[in-house]
Amino acid sequence: MPPRRLDLPLAISVGDPAGIGPEIIGKAWEARKSADLPPFFAIGDMGSFAPHWNGPVVKIDDPADSFAHFDSALPVIEVHTCLSVIPGEPDLDGAHCAYQALEMAIGFARAGSAAALVTGPVSKTQLYAVGFTHPGQTEFIAERCGVSKNNAVMMLAGPDLRVVPMTTHIPLASVASKLDGRLIRQRLRATAKGLQRNFGIENPRLAVAGFNPHAGESGNMGREEIDIFEPAIAQIRSEGFDVVGPLSADTMFHAEARSHYDAALCAYHDQALIPLKTLYFHDAVNITLGLPVVRTSPDHGTAFGIAGQNIAMPHSMIAAIKMAEMAALNRQAADAA
Amino acid sequence: MPPRRLDLPLAISVGDPAGIGPEIIGKAWEARKSADLPPFFAIGDMGSFAPHWNGPVVKIDDPADSFAHFDSALPVIEVHTCLSVIPGEPDLDGAHCAYQALEMAIGFARAGSAAALVTGPVSKTQLYAVGFTHPGQTEFIAERCGVSKNNAVMMLAGPDLRVVPMTTHIPLASVASKLDGRLIRQRLRATAKGLQRNFGIENPRLAVAGFNPHAGESGNMGREEIDIFEPAIAQIRSEGFDVVGPLSADTMFHAEARSHYDAALCAYHDQALIPLKTLYFHDAVNITLGLPVVRTSPDHGTAFGIAGQNIAMPHSMIAAIKMAEMAALNRQAADAA
Repeated sequence: MPPRRLDLPLAISVGDPAGIGPEIIGKAWEARKSADLPPFFAIGDMGSFAPHWNGPVVKIDDPADSFAHFDSALPVIEVHTCLSVIPGEPDLDGAHCAYQALEMAIGFARAGSAAALVTGPVSKTQLYAVGFTHPGQTEFIAERCGVSKNNAVMMLAGPDLRVVPMTTHIPLASVASKLDGRLIRQRLRATAKGLQRNFGIENPRLAVAGFNPHAGESGNMGREEIDIFEPAIAQIRSEGFDVVGPLSADTMFHAEARSHYDAALCAYHDQALIPLKTLYFHDAVNITLGLPVVRTSPDHGTAFGIAGQNIAMPHSMIAAIKMAEMAALNRQAADAA
Repeated sequence: MPPRRLDLPLAISVGDPAGIGPEIIGKAWEARKSADLPPFFAIGDMGSFAPHWNGPVVKIDDPADSFAHFDSALPVIEVHTCLSVIPGEPDLDGAHCAYQALEMAIGFARAGSAAALVTGPVSKTQLYAVGFTHPGQTEFIAERCGVSKNNAVMMLAGPDLRVVPMTTHIPLASVASKLDGRLIRQRLRATAKGLQRNFGIENPRLAVAGFNPHAGESGNMGREEIDIFEPAIAQIRSEGFDVVGPLSADTMFHAEARSHYDAALCAYHDQALIPLKTLYFHDAVNITLGLPVVRTSPDHGTAFGIAGQNIAMPHSMIAAIKMAEMAALNRQAADAA
């Protein structure tokens, strides 16, 4: 079987031009051969790159032109906002640029001009200042794709651990009141389908972390497991999905335990992110399940504090590009079958 | 400088004789040379060992006799309860034995007949059935040592991570109401002093994990950091201790982050135990700070389900013995100075 190839390039939105986005995209392009990356193009202002990265860029007008140029320069589809970028000093011009680049990148992926969408890091504070009203890029992309935000599920993935936080940026004391059977069932189904569609896993094995210490130890340390988790998991099992849990969260993330499931569903932000970032701080990827398009992003922020110093590490961006390629190939194969 | 040696053997209570305690103690004795372990003796029924472990045991009456026998057999100080042990099938005779062994082991350490106390795994359910009324071994040991349970602090330690959960076996939804400035200050002081006394770290660096995602992000996702953690940490800093935090819990446990502190104080059970057990599932050690004696234990339970099959791994028991030796040597050196 010849190696499968994508017919389309990947689209990468640059993110905030004062953050490390331009640098890590440039460094990923430099690694195109060593990391065996598929052709991609960036979407942003041409002037965003030079202050961060000393490499060749070429302006293109059509995503398909990426193939002709990718060997010799980073192809860029331009967002015209007449930027004067100072690394580490975000401004409203840059926020407009990030906003428009994201909008265009989604458009290319939706329209079938790009195989997948990789989003560079943005500053929510900056975006809010120019009229962005969504909680984050994920919800914005979901809306543009016509998907309810409840069905667009964030998964964080490292080399041998995938986690789905069922709640995210809310106070920990509010989590218990947000957990209900409907949310758990929805996340379990979306995760199973997302693993099938994006990762090519025919029968995904899901593991659900308990909420309380030792998953409540039969109700001795909290009843959420008995009252909420167990009925929801039983329902999803009855639909034919392979689900275990609720498990003791502290003993489900070591190497041997991780080998028994394809994704762990966690009740709250830190329960998911602590094991993932403890193991894979530099190379974890954020992938959104449940969208009509493939969307990944590096699992870090704009890092304004180190922008322009040539010290940002491109590992997470490179991993995001490779995961986007893998997911796009899996979808291509499934659609052809 | 010649290698420092302990003048006394270590005392190891066998724990529940139907659990893996006898097996891992026996296997630790087998590893005495390869792991460079100091002389130790077990406290339990002589008949506890043969059903689990096919090695030599020798009955002694005085801890000091351990030195003469340790090369050729596992020295045992006997608890007489006329046991007939069936691995994996705990009974009340076994629970009595575990209870008495613990009591005797504490006595030897308190009386200056043992350099340190290592406790084998017990079943709380079984102990409760024979009249034990404490939440766990740690609280019982604290009481026998005349220490308030609030000043006996549980630390879990792996090769390059030490964590202190500030709350432990309570429902997660109850944690917020238990966290107050007094608790945080008390745990910080006890941890700093415990690191000095047991680990020989003159100026311990402490890191405190925030309670909410991203440590609340300036109050946007919960106010515990601002209202409770920051004032408590400021107070402890003003007393001369080196404390940072509250930090984002998800980004403080990767390898580079761990190198910046000697112990992490965590708000709840899983926040501490997830990173520790993700990294060091087989070789983490539980050490109690704040006691007049050194006390460590393996970081796992009785494992009745695998008892008697010769598959239990002694790594955590071996690590607990080595840590007890290290702490006893540090105390010996400090007392001699």
